[in-house]
Amino acid sequence: MRVALGQFNAIVGDLAGNAEKMQKIWAEAMESNVDLLAFPELAVCGYPPEDLLLKKHFLQDNRLIVDKLAADCPDKTIVVGFAETYRENTYNSAAVLRAGQIERIYRKGLLVDYGVFDEPRCFQPRIESVIINIAGLNVAVTICADIWDIEWLAGLLDNTNQIQMILNISASPFHLGKIDKRQEVVGRCAKKFTCAVSYCNLIGGQDELVFDGSSCFADSTGKLITRGRAFAEDLIIADVIPAADGTVQVKPLKPWTQQPTDVLEEVYQALVLGTRDYARKNGFEKVLLGLSGGIDSSVAGAIAVAALGPENVVGITMPSKFNSPETIADAEITAKNLGIEFLTIPIEPILKQFDQALNKAPGWDSKGIAYENLQARIRGGILMSLSNQYGSLVLTTGNKSETAVGYATLYGDTAGGFAVIKDVPKTMVYKLAQHINKTAGRQIIPADVLNRPPTAELRPGQIDADSLPDYDLLDKILKGYVEEDKSPRQLVESGLPKEVVLRVIRMVDRNEYKRRQSPPGVKITPKAFGKDRRLPITNRYNSLDDKV
Amino acid sequence: MRVALGQFNAIVGDLAGNAEKMQKIWAEAMESNVDLLAFPELAVCGYPPEDLLLKKHFLQDNRLIVDKLAADCPDKTIVVGFAETYRENTYNSAAVLRAGQIERIYRKGLLVDYGVFDEPRCFQPRIESVIINIAGLNVAVTICADIWDIEWLAGLLDNTNQIQMILNISASPFHLGKIDKRQEVVGRCAKKFTCAVSYCNLIGGQDELVFDGSSCFADSTGKLITRGRAFAEDLIIADVIPAADGTVQVKPLKPWTQQPTDVLEEVYQALVLGTRDYARKNGFEKVLLGLSGGIDSSVAGAIAVAALGPENVVGITMPSKFNSPETIADAEITAKNLGIEFLTIPIEPILKQFDQALNKAPGWDSKGIAYENLQARIRGGILMSLSNQYGSLVLTTGNKSETAVGYATLYGDTAGGFAVIKDVPKTMVYKLAQHINKTAGRQIIPADVLNRPPTAELRPGQIDADSLPDYDLLDKILKGYVEEDKSPRQLVESGLPKEVVLRVIRMVDRNEYKRRQSPPGVKITPKAFGKDRRLPITNRYNSLDDKV
Repeated sequence: MRVALGQFNAIVGDLAGNAEKMQKIWAEAMESNVDLLAFPELAVCGYPPEDLLLKKHFLQDNRLIVDKLAADCPDKTIVVGFAETYRENTYNSAAVLRAGQIERIYRKGLLVDYGVFDEPRCFQPRIESVIINIAGLNVAVTICADIWDIEWLAGLLDNTNQIQMILNISASPFHLGKIDKRQEVVGRCAKKFTCAVSYCNLIGGQDELVFDGSSCFADSTGKLITRGRAFAEDLIIADVIPAADGTVQVKPLKPWTQQPTDVLEEVYQALVLGTRDYARKNGFEKVLLGLSGGIDSSVAGAIAVAALGPENVVGITMPSKFNSPETIADAEITAKNLGIEFLTIPIEPILKQFDQALNKAPGWDSKGIAYENLQARIRGGILMSLSNQYGSLVLTTGNKSETAVGYATLYGDTAGGFAVIKDVPKTMVYKLAQHINKTAGRQIIPADVLNRPPTAELRPGQIDADSLPDYDLLDKILKGYVEEDKSPRQLVESGLPKEVVLRVIRMVDRNEYKRRQSPPGVKITPKAFGKDRRLPITNRYNSLDDKV
Repeated sequence: MRVALGQFNAIVGDLAGNAEKMQKIWAEAMESNVDLLAFPELAVCGYPPEDLLLKKHFLQDNRLIVDKLAADCPDKTIVVGFAETYRENTYNSAAVLRAGQIERIYRKGLLVDYGVFDEPRCFQPRIESVIINIAGLNVAVTICADIWDIEWLAGLLDNTNQIQMILNISASPFHLGKIDKRQEVVGRCAKKFTCAVSYCNLIGGQDELVFDGSSCFADSTGKLITRGRAFAEDLIIADVIPAADGTVQVKPLKPWTQQPTDVLEEVYQALVLGTRDYARKNGFEKVLLGLSGGIDSSVAGAIAVAALGPENVVGITMPSKFNSPETIADAEITAKNLGIEFLTIPIEPILKQFDQALNKAPGWDSKGIAYENLQARIRGGILMSLSNQYGSLVLTTGNKSETAVGYATLYGDTAGGFAVIKDVPKTMVYKLAQHINKTAGRQIIPADVLNRPPTAELRPGQIDADSLPDYDLLDKILKGYVEEDKSPRQLVESGLPKEVVLRVIRMVDRNEYKRRQSPPGVKITPKAFGKDRRLPITNRYNSLDDKV
């Protein structure tokens, strides 16, 4: 049995466009004479469609598209994910198309509602196996989470005949370590059922999520035989061959050897794809970003260039009297290194007028924190004005560490449509900068930018360390508190300094309101801000073991 | 059996504070010699705690508090909602406290995950009835949604002895028509099981939600016998008396007669409570808002004054050359009528400097839409600067109609912490203004403000009608599309003009990104923006029956 996995970049809501793409892919697959071609979970409507699923006409349109695909389909087996209404229920379904018909429909059994997922909000689960026979082999159709709980799957497949392959169609988003984890799941599943597993995952960016693809085949010993590209479309073809002893072999059409995992390269690719797809899928050709000469905007700029090309990125520096000549020069050098258009718009005259106007309000202080934030807000206003003028998307450049503790000005440096490195901790931003330089084989981000102590430059001589703990320490606390939901006591018992732990937790909790109004950005950690972490703004919780 | 319902304003996360409040209430209830005192759903931790439930220490702390309440409790029966971990699962539970002990625990069976709710994300359901005997009567304990599906409830109570009362503890948020609907549910439940129903609901604002209380008793004929206050704390006490014929009577301690429903007053009260609680629970004493002399900011100002007192509200007018002397004067008159502090900060000099600075960017147009938005952003910057300076909360004043179609400037008029009338359609804003004047018995909001055609005053002679359909028509389309998820075809078939329908839908869809960065505001309709309506930003969906 020759199997093809059509790993493609589906766009949420673009039903006709996704169908057209699938028809192109199957024309290509048919040239290789495949018996079975699979597309990802919800390939017809994209993933996640969220509350589009509450619109009856959206579900009807899903069906129309599947009917059309069925009518057009070649004399082979095609499996395609779609959102289905059936007897008043809504299912996350896989249609098996053959010879102009919808032959069978499998409906997802294990719906997910942790992290970024909300499936039970709109879908009902269904526990009924679908086994299809292709070229004499029994193939079980499954969807995403169905293979992650192996005992549950054993129950589902309990009364079926021996199967030679489990097909899984997925929309499994990327985060650090996810590609390896997924491979483990696929291998374990193959071993458990002594069959081949073919795993077809979505690729592409969708708001906060990036799907990395990495579709794969495992043989019945659980060994990974071939894997498709990560963060790009691909068509992966392999022959699935049962042996007389009950084992199942897999032979890929193209030779493949596993490469060692490069975590930084994975993160970089995720950020590039997430940024490209957010811009392109929302109709933006060009992007703008503020370049301060600091590490965050330099890295965000490099990612934007990789995503959209230097001709589509404009860097803007907006100096005040507090910006040093060195950082202003570094912004320009970075722009030059990236090959992008660069504008300088000083904010000093605007700041002066604002300050004068605000002096009409009793108690206005031209040296306080409000005055500092004002500078950031003027910059936000300039970027948004240019965005409105040019129809360009503004990228924001804040990292996860400052997003966590609220070390940012709302409507100032947080102003924009997409937050490129929102989920990247500051310590990893440095590593990414080095990775970018290393991969380019030249100093795109100047050494000065890497070596200078981080500063917001909103008052004379200011550095981040005035307000925040050292970033190594901060990122350790944030990982424990934000990503692992540890208590203050647990953090302190793990060796972190109590006073700093309590201060950081207070900052994280108090700044939920800023995050709620921040633009989306690519999730790359196991728990990102956004749909992944849903905390109330109004929240007086203080752990009762606060007095750790 | 004498039953008391302790309808109180629990604060999310304030475990110790909520417990203290409950102890005060029970001291009061005991003076009336009650046999049973019930508190709302999740009274210990407030509702909804969202992902606080994923923190193990939060669940441990819930238990600590319940243990303490049990140890302190009088020799009567007290029912209190809390978040419980039991055998690795997390439950939405009701502890029955008696004589210093946790005597029983009921765990919610019907978890809700539609609209604003996400319960199955963190809770497991449990199907096991709990019947307690109090003063010789059998009382079934239930939680919120458990009584909304009467067939499910019949299954739960199937094998139990005859019960004389169903106690339901709830955290049921307000929206238009909800109070009447809830009463219907309570009555139907009482009738079905031929028993009394006592229903204890939460009150208070929590981010987007307002819980209205309105706790009540029904007798076994399903008749509503008494109801507590709406939008305020209350202690409702009644005697539940079984008769020989199997019916159950209810006699309230205080006489009560049903008042006719006043929809506008309900909405007004919800907005006032929601605004007060957002400010107070987040530690703000004072609020600021821009007063333009238009209807939206006038109504928002009146609500702020009702919520926090005139001494805690500051109105700021920020005229440019496009603001007419009439609107500027109206802003001042409204402030005077409301008795609030009023500041005037002209934006013209700032606008001029911004314009000059932006002229450095090629293609900048001093007359286009970017220039219009800039004025709104300068105002947003002024309000936020004063917010930072004074530690005051900025209230935004956009209504639901403009929020829906994106007729607002991101980081401009949307800049602020809480959006008072975010879920109020423009046509209802007018009715609220009249209601406010009528209730006050004087013209708080000037007649001019009510009669002038709506305008953003961002260019000479601009009115809303240049860009938007008439608000009567717009609000009809929005109700169908946003609240009822109707398709373009359905809207047109209901008699709405096709071209306008398609234009409005496109505007709604394209502006999801703005709403995602907007502050929270009080939900008053069946479907608000925010947690209630979760649509992707990246979304190319166009109904295939677009060509209606």
